[in-house]
Amino acid sequence: MVEWHAMKSIPIVQLGFGAVGRELARQLLAQREALAARYGVSLDYLAIADSAGALYTGQPLSAEAVLAAAEAKAAGWPLSDAGGVARTGSLATLRLPARAIAVDVSASGANEVLLADAVRFGHRVVLANKKPLAGALTSFRALTEGGATRYEATVGAGLPVIGTLQALLDSGDQVVRIEAAMSGTLGYLCGELEAGNPLSAAVRAAHALGYTEPDPRDDLSGADVARKALILARTCGLPWDLAGIPAEPWFPPELAAVSRDEFMARLEELDAPLAARVAEARDSGGALRYVAEITPDGASVGLRVLPAGHPLAGLRGPDNLFSFTTTRYAERPLVVRGPGAGVPVTAAGVLADIVATAREMRP
Amino acid sequence: MVEWHAMKSIPIVQLGFGAVGRELARQLLAQREALAARYGVSLDYLAIADSAGALYTGQPLSAEAVLAAAEAKAAGWPLSDAGGVARTGSLATLRLPARAIAVDVSASGANEVLLADAVRFGHRVVLANKKPLAGALTSFRALTEGGATRYEATVGAGLPVIGTLQALLDSGDQVVRIEAAMSGTLGYLCGELEAGNPLSAAVRAAHALGYTEPDPRDDLSGADVARKALILARTCGLPWDLAGIPAEPWFPPELAAVSRDEFMARLEELDAPLAARVAEARDSGGALRYVAEITPDGASVGLRVLPAGHPLAGLRGPDNLFSFTTTRYAERPLVVRGPGAGVPVTAAGVLADIVATAREMRP
Repeated sequence: MVEWHAMKSIPIVQLGFGAVGRELARQLLAQREALAARYGVSLDYLAIADSAGALYTGQPLSAEAVLAAAEAKAAGWPLSDAGGVARTGSLATLRLPARAIAVDVSASGANEVLLADAVRFGHRVVLANKKPLAGALTSFRALTEGGATRYEATVGAGLPVIGTLQALLDSGDQVVRIEAAMSGTLGYLCGELEAGNPLSAAVRAAHALGYTEPDPRDDLSGADVARKALILARTCGLPWDLAGIPAEPWFPPELAAVSRDEFMARLEELDAPLAARVAEARDSGGALRYVAEITPDGASVGLRVLPAGHPLAGLRGPDNLFSFTTTRYAERPLVVRGPGAGVPVTAAGVLADIVATAREMRP
Repeated sequence: MVEWHAMKSIPIVQLGFGAVGRELARQLLAQREALAARYGVSLDYLAIADSAGALYTGQPLSAEAVLAAAEAKAAGWPLSDAGGVARTGSLATLRLPARAIAVDVSASGANEVLLADAVRFGHRVVLANKKPLAGALTSFRALTEGGATRYEATVGAGLPVIGTLQALLDSGDQVVRIEAAMSGTLGYLCGELEAGNPLSAAVRAAHALGYTEPDPRDDLSGADVARKALILARTCGLPWDLAGIPAEPWFPPELAAVSRDEFMARLEELDAPLAARVAEARDSGGALRYVAEITPDGASVGLRVLPAGHPLAGLRGPDNLFSFTTTRYAERPLVVRGPGAGVPVTAAGVLADIVATAREMRP
């Protein structure tokens, strides 16, 4: 039990109040007292903002106000009506205390400058939002310099991926190769294909169940996997841009420009080519997986036939898997596996980052 | 690049200068400048001590002095002759600066009080030595209260096990079950048994190669696995002692008391019972593994026949594997796998803990 007089208040400014943002708020508030007792840090919401409004009074928000706003938002009310205020200008206009943690759990592509400014002024950043790290390399560097930003949940949700990689690098290990299956949706589809189901049926079923993005091409393009591969590569210090990591899409170029409805109607066109890849894998005794491979010489993202003994070949269904081959883990890799998506585990990954950051902000 | 004026000197006091201790010194000194540039912390050796002596001048030790002492120690000189001084009294007599990191990479069972005192006086602790955490529960609590001690390398060497578990707990997740293969030596022996080799031959070969402890019963007793299971359980907040985690030994009681030479001569007595267990596993289509299982209701450590689909059944050879089933990772566990022993990865695990701790000690 930490003495009360040593308690340090850590102001939290949260950007994004969707499913992950609301779950984060619930988890944080539920853990608040335990974390205060354990680490002597009091995580205090100062503001929660999304595109429609903000909860902000200039004083720490009460748990009741945050939870009521979460309920209202979940019921469809905009944050400005859910006990909040209409959002005016950027978060930069908030009067932040000396040192706060800015948490981005939105999917916004417009927060890069705000977050980089926060770091410049001595605040810390925690991200589940990939976009601020997958844009300009200068933004990545501005955010991550000096370890000011944690971003475990951007890759593999709550799985220990970025922290593991950072620990390897901090100890002077050198990455030889990272191989990863980072899309639960594409992993699920690989499993369906191997079970003999046509891709069209698998995509339609996954779409109906909400396992895919509203437009399944956002999964099937591989762009999200490439973005995660870029974050891993940049974490290794590789000065790359997204253009340098071409992702192999599951559909031909002529289906990229059609409407979503037309794409869904023409899904059968993908069945034969994919079935051929599955047959190729089966004939070689291997497995078909959508894999990102990152080496110091370059990265590739696409469908691969892997030999039966490969760590990624043993993966089944929607689990993510990350295999780190390094100078010290040379003969046998360090492997992390498990569910790499989902609201509770993503929020938990963000909260663990907040705790680690808060522990560094104690006096 | 962190400005020099913001650089924080973090004094390091290292207990133990065996193979892991010397490798840690080499890794730390090689990474020192990079870590200073990245995080604004300067890791400065203040003292290195083992049972025979200490390097200690009251001033930070030069890299040259540390590396020379490491070479001399590796060549068989005691630390007191290797540029050091004869150790007098306990490390507690060292004059420590206000806040230091005490690093225990020894195998000593005599450091508990010293380390608990260090925590009490505001220092931080990093452990590869399991013993201070596997003794009295009060010592475990005194060391870990407030997160003052990191101990990643005590379980799974450099694999992200303790950090992963702590992050789950910090975010409010609840452990339902941890299943783990935590002994590379016993994993190797399971592999040899499954390949049809008699245990006696496998143990003799492993012993000759230095894969086992000098007395192989120190591995075959399962006591080391039980100690790691206790550390995992205590990390979960379970108030257990080692007596509550009985480990199943690979040898009968009558071979526990004989001399090492007699034990080695009578190894063939183990062949038939173990071969029967392997046959049992094979008949059921499963795999024989030496497994620790920890639940809130209790822990067990022993040889188990696992069904083919079990994550631990897929393990081959000396790799470690940790499977965390929690409230949030309920249907599919979070799994960490890889080499869980070895001098470089153990030292790297310690160094990563030192870095994480140092980052919390910045102004």
